[in-house]
Amino acid sequence: MDGLREGVVGAWREMRAARPLVLCITNRVTPQRLADVLLAAGASPVMADNPREVAQMAAIAGGILLNTGLHETQPASLAAAAEAIAALGKPAVLDPVGAGATAYRSDEIAALLGRARFAAIRGNASEIRALAGTGGGARGVDSADESDAARGAAVGLARDRGCVVAVSGERDLVTDGERVVRVGGGHEWLTRITGAGCALGGLTAACAAASDPWSGTLAAHAAFALAAGRAAARATGPGTLSVLLLDELAALEAEDLLGADLAKEAVAGAA
Amino acid sequence: MDGLREGVVGAWREMRAARPLVLCITNRVTPQRLADVLLAAGASPVMADNPREVAQMAAIAGGILLNTGLHETQPASLAAAAEAIAALGKPAVLDPVGAGATAYRSDEIAALLGRARFAAIRGNASEIRALAGTGGGARGVDSADESDAARGAAVGLARDRGCVVAVSGERDLVTDGERVVRVGGGHEWLTRITGAGCALGGLTAACAAASDPWSGTLAAHAAFALAAGRAAARATGPGTLSVLLLDELAALEAEDLLGADLAKEAVAGAA
Amino acid sequence: MDGLREGVVGAWREMRAARPLVLCITNRVTPQRLADVLLAAGASPVMADNPREVAQMAAIAGGILLNTGLHETQPASLAAAAEAIAALGKPAVLDPVGAGATAYRSDEIAALLGRARFAAIRGNASEIRALAGTGGGARGVDSADESDAARGAAVGLARDRGCVVAVSGERDLVTDGERVVRVGGGHEWLTRITGAGCALGGLTAACAAASDPWSGTLAAHAAFALAAGRAAARATGPGTLSVLLLDELAALEAEDLLGADLAKEAVAGAA
Repeated sequence: MDGLREGVVGAWREMRAARPLVLCITNRVTPQRLADVLLAAGASPVMADNPREVAQMAAIAGGILLNTGLHETQPASLAAAAEAIAALGKPAVLDPVGAGATAYRSDEIAALLGRARFAAIRGNASEIRALAGTGGGARGVDSADESDAARGAAVGLARDRGCVVAVSGERDLVTDGERVVRVGGGHEWLTRITGAGCALGGLTAACAAASDPWSGTLAAHAAFALAAGRAAARATGPGTLSVLLLDELAALEAEDLLGADLAKEAVAGAA
Repeated sequence: MDGLREGVVGAWREMRAARPLVLCITNRVTPQRLADVLLAAGASPVMADNPREVAQMAAIAGGILLNTGLHETQPASLAAAAEAIAALGKPAVLDPVGAGATAYRSDEIAALLGRARFAAIRGNASEIRALAGTGGGARGVDSADESDAARGAAVGLARDRGCVVAVSGERDLVTDGERVVRVGGGHEWLTRITGAGCALGGLTAACAAASDPWSGTLAAHAAFALAAGRAAARATGPGTLSVLLLDELAALEAEDLLGADLAKEAVAGAA
Repeated sequence: MDGLREGVVGAWREMRAARPLVLCITNRVTPQRLADVLLAAGASPVMADNPREVAQMAAIAGGILLNTGLHETQPASLAAAAEAIAALGKPAVLDPVGAGATAYRSDEIAALLGRARFAAIRGNASEIRALAGTGGGARGVDSADESDAARGAAVGLARDRGCVVAVSGERDLVTDGERVVRVGGGHEWLTRITGAGCALGGLTAACAAASDPWSGTLAAHAAFALAAGRAAARATGPGTLSVLLLDELAALEAEDLLGADLAKEAVAGAA
């Protein structure tokens, strides 16, 4: 077993053992799917986003997810959570939904990046490019670019922010600025399910909370892709896939991740 | 192939090819189901309803759905979207959820009708009757009347507003004030699924955005009913129906709509 | 047939016949699942929580559910609904989500208990203990205690408030302060589904609205557990369980509840 798979297997095992409480400050569209994925995988979601209790919730949480739905009252929740992340040093994941789509969205996300340090940032190609300043604007919130096009942006963003960056695509890309790993094995139907990316962001927060940002992000992406592939083999479309994905995540054991589709890539300019 | 089915088949094909971005200003109960249906069908939903970015989102959207959940912050979102619809002339669908149920709701919906012109209005019988001024009040948000009882109201509303009106029922009714078409083939279990009507409203916006209001509204209703009928044949109740509906929508090809259950009806007073 | 099962069978039959309109003032995470469960079971949910129409909605509702998600705008909705409950005397159920988790949450829930009398209170063990003043704080919103540990708290709370109290656990506990009944037959996967407890709270409101708090609460818990057990027998994990649960609830007839797993327990100090 190489070191890469060893870390992934260990991170999933630790997440299962710790059952981390993950505070999710998220959008209003997919909170149920996000929570279902976390519960099925073995983590414990709490979605309390009222600024009056965010700090107290953050204090008891093992990990934190910020997903920028940006509905009317969410900016205050996100700001309170970012402040708690900075004060408590909790492992946190940023899912910058729709970055680059509107000026308002870009400004709010930039403000979050200024307020707290994140363990990982997870987005689609156009969102990661927008954060790195190399994007051309998103088409809504689903990806208009492939993860290949965002490779340079992801590596640069990881170096600039000192965090792990993950880009969803046909093959996901995970980098810490020095290493790049591709994660394969998902299914095209995942792009036809609302909140698949949001759920992956939450799973990343759960795994990073229980291990470390690099192994945790890889484990979350490998587990999600493996479970999705198994679900797709039993599904007849995106609807059944979304349901069977939960069953497969619940059944996924650490050893199963030895079969994950992981591939290292060389990185120019790496130390 | 008669002209009716020709239009329906063409509208579905165009929606699939265009993959229209549909801005949904909707309620807080069923946004995930609505987005899942749009994604499965082949459209691209964006649910960003913060008034600070609604205009910019509307500008990049192909179609717009206004669904009047009327939670505390939604009236401002709806007003911003209605303003954008009027300014940009984008094809928009109004789903007047709960029209007639409370005075507050009736007033807000009347205000929306005053602010923008809609390509189509889709509701259940009691909602359409309330909009036409002939209703007796809704019982919550599920239909207390059959679509037959709303036939006159629907035709009158379509003429008054110069738009297509669709009424959900055992057999849906679609009219532009001159023509009336009945769409059959759904399933009783659809009435036991939250947000089935909301999803149909979104699909109407997607199809109308890609073709025209008349063919688009018919295509959305025909596709939804056909997919629901196929899903029901494999389902064991409303839960499995709601999931398999997504699979069937994803699998539905334009040619399949040649088998849609469409029936023209004579209209008194038509030109 | 003993009196206990007779009451349960009758309450389910009455709920099915009445199809009660249940006004749900609930959280932003699981409203769709809650509404799906109510619709599948045969009730009629309305989720309108805007304070501007809560009183009017409450007036036409048969029963009311207050679920304390406590998102930013919900306290005003809850207060308006509590006022309507007190004024109209409608049967209402309180689901004190996260009671004891934060000071803010405890204060808001205590305020609700001061504003209106509830027919039933339903929660997990740590929530019920927090309400009874015997808890040690919740771990997020999923239960950190077993229902056994909350038995004394539940009986005491029922006596103090003059209402039925239900505690979810491996075997649910239902008490009115004089009687205690255990309801078995659910499945461990229910703890891996978001909103299972929320849905049970809604079902309790529906059944209590159609019969009486004691029989209604028992019927809701017995029906939910029976349907979940049947669903689990066909499911492959929590995802399919959540979907098949809806099918089984829709198919559940009153006579099926003769097979419910109900057991009376002796109560110390009962009259």
